Amino acid sequence: MPGAVAGGLPPIEGTCAQTAALSLPSPSVSDALAQLKSRAERIQGLGAIASLLVWDQRTIMPPAGAMSRGGHIGLLQQLGHEELIDPEVGRLLDELRPLEESLDPDSDAAALIRVLRRDHDKAVRVPPELAAEMARAAAEAAPVWLEAKATSNFALFLPALERAVELRRRYIACFDPTDEPYDILLDDFEPETKSADVTRIFAEIKAELVPLIAELRDGETDDSFLSADFPIGPQIALGQEVVDLFGHRPDTWRIDPTEHPFASGTGIDDIRVTTHYYPDSLESLFSTMHEYGHGLYQHQVRRDIAHLPIGQASSLGIHESQSRLWENLVGRGLPFWRYFYPRLQARFPGQLGGVELDRFYAAINKVQPSLIRIRADEVTYGLHVILRFELEQDIVNGRVELSDLPRIWNERMEEYLGVEVPDDAHGVLQDVHWSAGLIGYFSTYLLGTVMSVQLWEKMAEEVPELDERVERGEFGAIREWLGERVHANGRKYPPQETLRRAVGTTIDAKPYLAYLRRKYGAPVAA
Amino acid sequence: MPGAVAGGLPPIEGTCAQTAALSLPSPSVSDALAQLKSRAERIQGLGAIASLLVWDQRTIMPPAGAMSRGGHIGLLQQLGHEELIDPEVGRLLDELRPLEESLDPDSDAAALIRVLRRDHDKAVRVPPELAAEMARAAAEAAPVWLEAKATSNFALFLPALERAVELRRRYIACFDPTDEPYDILLDDFEPETKSADVTRIFAEIKAELVPLIAELRDGETDDSFLSADFPIGPQIALGQEVVDLFGHRPDTWRIDPTEHPFASGTGIDDIRVTTHYYPDSLESLFSTMHEYGHGLYQHQVRRDIAHLPIGQASSLGIHESQSRLWENLVGRGLPFWRYFYPRLQARFPGQLGGVELDRFYAAINKVQPSLIRIRADEVTYGLHVILRFELEQDIVNGRVELSDLPRIWNERMEEYLGVEVPDDAHGVLQDVHWSAGLIGYFSTYLLGTVMSVQLWEKMAEEVPELDERVERGEFGAIREWLGERVHANGRKYPPQETLRRAVGTTIDAKPYLAYLRRKYGAPVAA
Repeated sequence: MPGAVAGGLPPIEGTCAQTAALSLPSPSVSDALAQLKSRAERIQGLGAIASLLVWDQRTIMPPAGAMSRGGHIGLLQQLGHEELIDPEVGRLLDELRPLEESLDPDSDAAALIRVLRRDHDKAVRVPPELAAEMARAAAEAAPVWLEAKATSNFALFLPALERAVELRRRYIACFDPTDEPYDILLDDFEPETKSADVTRIFAEIKAELVPLIAELRDGETDDSFLSADFPIGPQIALGQEVVDLFGHRPDTWRIDPTEHPFASGTGIDDIRVTTHYYPDSLESLFSTMHEYGHGLYQHQVRRDIAHLPIGQASSLGIHESQSRLWENLVGRGLPFWRYFYPRLQARFPGQLGGVELDRFYAAINKVQPSLIRIRADEVTYGLHVILRFELEQDIVNGRVELSDLPRIWNERMEEYLGVEVPDDAHGVLQDVHWSAGLIGYFSTYLLGTVMSVQLWEKMAEEVPELDERVERGEFGAIREWLGERVHANGRKYPPQETLRRAVGTTIDAKPYLAYLRRKYGAPVAA
Repeated sequence: MPGAVAGGLPPIEGTCAQTAALSLPSPSVSDALAQLKSRAERIQGLGAIASLLVWDQRTIMPPAGAMSRGGHIGLLQQLGHEELIDPEVGRLLDELRPLEESLDPDSDAAALIRVLRRDHDKAVRVPPELAAEMARAAAEAAPVWLEAKATSNFALFLPALERAVELRRRYIACFDPTDEPYDILLDDFEPETKSADVTRIFAEIKAELVPLIAELRDGETDDSFLSADFPIGPQIALGQEVVDLFGHRPDTWRIDPTEHPFASGTGIDDIRVTTHYYPDSLESLFSTMHEYGHGLYQHQVRRDIAHLPIGQASSLGIHESQSRLWENLVGRGLPFWRYFYPRLQARFPGQLGGVELDRFYAAINKVQPSLIRIRADEVTYGLHVILRFELEQDIVNGRVELSDLPRIWNERMEEYLGVEVPDDAHGVLQDVHWSAGLIGYFSTYLLGTVMSVQLWEKMAEEVPELDERVERGEFGAIREWLGERVHANGRKYPPQETLRRAVGTTIDAKPYLAYLRRKYGAPVAA
């Protein structure tokens, strides 16, 4: 054979079995902590992969791919659940209890054991059949809710809602009794937080907001120029400019269009925010700032724990504190617009070239009671959440008939915000959460908003010239402060402890209410 | 409380345990075949999910995401491997043997058991440590190969190659001895195909190609106009036009740019082809046709087996027969260009408006011995593959020193194609395969090309007016014929049986050689 060489390597010298000896596990891999860590990495990895599948489905997947995508996401969830409830994980957690008690509770190892024990203990309470049934119910309810919302037909949605509530009751029954059954649902979204505490904070907020809104509702701020023609091309460039200005490491972020904005990603170096561009509004700009805040949280978790469950978010409320901080405290503040407004005008000279900064600033902060939560301004937003939180507790405690929800919804909208709900699509059917069985989720939006103000004020105490930095377009100090105080800890602590370590106290509505009074109590612009 | 209703639903009526009774497995789920099917779905699902992660990494992932992506893909592979080698799968396969023997071998159930037994039996032979070591070696060799290729430094790559070969020898040693050790490697890519058969077919091809190429090599076809400035925008539209013209179901395909083109997707309704646009060439057009062929195979598998291992591709060779058929038999044929050339000219009037069809057709079929396999023309391509196939057998059988490979490579390129290799980047280092441990893969490229001609000629016998259909831009009959004869069967049969069911015989080089003689033996255009 041409080119062949006599006397080369002897043929097939290795043996199959020989290999095993090459890669014996190192001693450390065999200890219980390393084993638990390895399990934890798998669980977290499956979650990260599922996030990518969801992101892909909501942004770029060929639409027909939906037929198999649900099954693939379900498979990952099932595998993750199987890993988590594996009796071997329980055994490792038992074996590790003495070690955990001997460790500094702030250590990563202690936190890993603590967090995984929490997750394991909760997961084993729920029979796989119930978990599967909840997932199936959510999947089946999704198109029903879409149709019901599109046709404003609550009766169509009612059976799906009844099933979701029934399943949540069964879910509650899997756990030891608590003061409030609702506590068990809340704990999934805002760990170790009690309904009674939320009720107390929300009552304090409601007592201030209802009169404040009544006082502000007849303001005459002109915001008509925000409904102009804003071509998508410059909006895309603008969103990228804002994300790059707020800052991140290179080669780590994407922004993509989607129907309902969200932030996602597969790890600290793969952050994906999404937004929805409207051709007649700048809404996507503020929603991009919001999602930037979520993305930055995931981006700045400590690298050495980012692949573990302790490297995730502490709670939905803490997550929301990050998004609200960038959207509202930065993005609706005057210092930011002193810096950024000329840049915005340069992108839309025809639409905004003749609008002065003070008029623009007043317009983006206009208080206007309205029907839809996700489009509500900073002041009225809280009452949308409080209404839902109250209703959910009534639902879980059986104090309302589900068929009565539209009537009750509409009555409270009139009472809290003074608006009349024209149909259920703009009322009780507007949010996706209940169709997916997500009862107990809504309160985290307002808890996060409240905490965002606490964080901002603490930051303003500690970061010299905070407003001046923002006014110069410098955001590094904000990123660093949030990174050190909040992001780096990931999920090592429950949300109130996470907050306490950042600002010195647990949640407190007073700074939030003072901020709203200060910003909105008098006209925000001449 | 406002709006609360007295006497609603009783609180917390369900109980956790009650749920289990609701969703008892149906009797059929408990039988062994259904259990095996459920395992098979999980294995296949994990593979499909891994495909998405690879696609994402190669197209749109923020580059820094690579740091965790390898681990996530590895996790999915590991979970799939664990599912496959699970002793319970072995037990189910044993239990199902009598059923399998009682079933029609063509039935889906018999095929599923057969294919899963094959996969299980192969997988359990390989110790997890060896599998992990091979994956690690491939991951670690990837950047080394890139660097070695970029600097044309074979010595840099040699240690990685030695490790890859060593691991492949160990892999071979895990299996029962065969006539040729290389058979074991080949079987992973082209199941149940023997080195001796490939050697015989390739010898037949080589004997014809070497003189044919010598005869054609001094042709004076002008193809200078193919190196013009072709802006990317129209190229993107052109690729979409071709994929839509060749045809697919709506809402199911994507085309994205990438470095090295490939076809992928997560299921029959989510097909993703990729291409690389060069600003000075139409290469992406032909590469898109090629990937269309791969994509269509995956797109047209029977829906009811698409989520199972039997719903995948029969082999890499059969896969390549599909891509080559669309790229060469359709896409480099005169009937297609009679239809499509005016459309191409309309997209590039300045570049091609003055070039007549016969000159264009001659240029895209110009035979020109060259250095790089993936850019080779239809005639010389085969010798690139044969060279690699011969070298791989020498490597596996220890007939060459690995350090001698550059010299041997260059000698054979001179001998087979009459070209001088200027450096190893344009020689032995050009392909990624060996760095990834993929020894035994190359031959499938030529086997597929040979089979593509057999398929085309059979189709021409059975589909009336095949050329006339192509000339009218009608491809439905081609899609349907391939769908029924090849795609629908998925992986139910090994490649040669898949081919036999489509064309009546197993692989045969004569139609391929006759096609080349017919098309290239005389000048293809005036």
